[in-house]
Amino acid sequence: MDQPEAAAGKRIPKAVIKRLSLYSRVLQNLEMKTITKVSSKELSEHLGQNPAQVRKDLAYFGQFGIPGVGYYVAELRAQIKRILRTDREVRAAVIGIGNLGQALMSYTGFQRQGFQIAGAFDADPAKVGMTIRGAQVYHINELEDRIRQLGIEIVILALPREAAQTVVDRVVQSGINAILNFVPARLVVPTGVKVHYVDLTIELESLAYYLK
Amino acid sequence: MDQPEAAAGKRIPKAVIKRLSLYSRVLQNLEMKTITKVSSKELSEHLGQNPAQVRKDLAYFGQFGIPGVGYYVAELRAQIKRILRTDREVRAAVIGIGNLGQALMSYTGFQRQGFQIAGAFDADPAKVGMTIRGAQVYHINELEDRIRQLGIEIVILALPREAAQTVVDRVVQSGINAILNFVPARLVVPTGVKVHYVDLTIELESLAYYLK
Repeated sequence: MDQPEAAAGKRIPKAVIKRLSLYSRVLQNLEMKTITKVSSKELSEHLGQNPAQVRKDLAYFGQFGIPGVGYYVAELRAQIKRILRTDREVRAAVIGIGNLGQALMSYTGFQRQGFQIAGAFDADPAKVGMTIRGAQVYHINELEDRIRQLGIEIVILALPREAAQTVVDRVVQSGINAILNFVPARLVVPTGVKVHYVDLTIELESLAYYLK
Repeated sequence: MDQPEAAAGKRIPKAVIKRLSLYSRVLQNLEMKTITKVSSKELSEHLGQNPAQVRKDLAYFGQFGIPGVGYYVAELRAQIKRILRTDREVRAAVIGIGNLGQALMSYTGFQRQGFQIAGAFDADPAKVGMTIRGAQVYHINELEDRIRQLGIEIVILALPREAAQTVVDRVVQSGINAILNFVPARLVVPTGVKVHYVDLTIELESLAYYLK
């Protein structure tokens, strides 16, 4: 298995990976408040989770923290970023530069977490050549070449539904194995390629349950 | 408890509520393919989950389905929509009409799931009076009045971080208890008000873990 950080080669559940990113966010907030130590109880309170869950999640990656004391904030954060492999700059590209694509390119949160939007693609000649927050928009015809040239590792899809599968095939052909998909369409990808679907209706629908 | 659909008054975990929305999506796809019956095994395959989990989730709401046969697609979907309270039109408003806000107003997925963006708000006079997909943009000063007048039940936040908490306080004062938040900031709300955070970096960060 190509996951050296996982203790004893345990398979790490998807939910744990997602929570690690949440832990990282909480730790970053603590760092900003110059808090240097945190107990798993405090950490779990910030997350709205129980302390046992937090300890169990972190145990997947070996022994962090000191019993009775807790965790050193900076150290734990660095460890988590290493596990998530965001302890370096990850270069991403946005495909589809409509309102959503432009919003994603302007989203400062990505950069703060080590993601660099290094380029963007669109089929509309009017958009080609635009620069948004330092990243250039290329014609979709240049996709394969630019992915290689720019060192893109993650692709973010915000293009029209009809075009999605064709573009995804080309993205996969270019060697990309991580796709963040905002298009409301199921995408067919080979084994080994990971697609995360962001479906905005799911958040809304589950919220409706709590309406008075 | 104000949740009549829950069998025997059991508290339904958040994760189950979120999965119900996924089930609803899968069932909708089956309906479109004119498939009328589905087993929990098939349903779970579409979801990438184990059949026991699917049956356990649905059991929170009493007895659906016929043992050995499965579920009637249309009936199960109607039941889930009733549970999620999306078996009616739910009126939502978007606050903050930048690129993201405009993208959200144009997002056809909401309408398909029974959500109607009935209005929008911005502080920029240049945007006030615009109509996007049939919904008008009002000045943020009119927030309280328009929320009442338009019958808004859910508010979607896409405004600048600095303005978020002040606006949220006003939203809550207006009687709203369900907020979908795209702003990268923790919001303080009274007990009983539900905020769902959409943090786009979390999806990206957990995706980075799977990079080659």
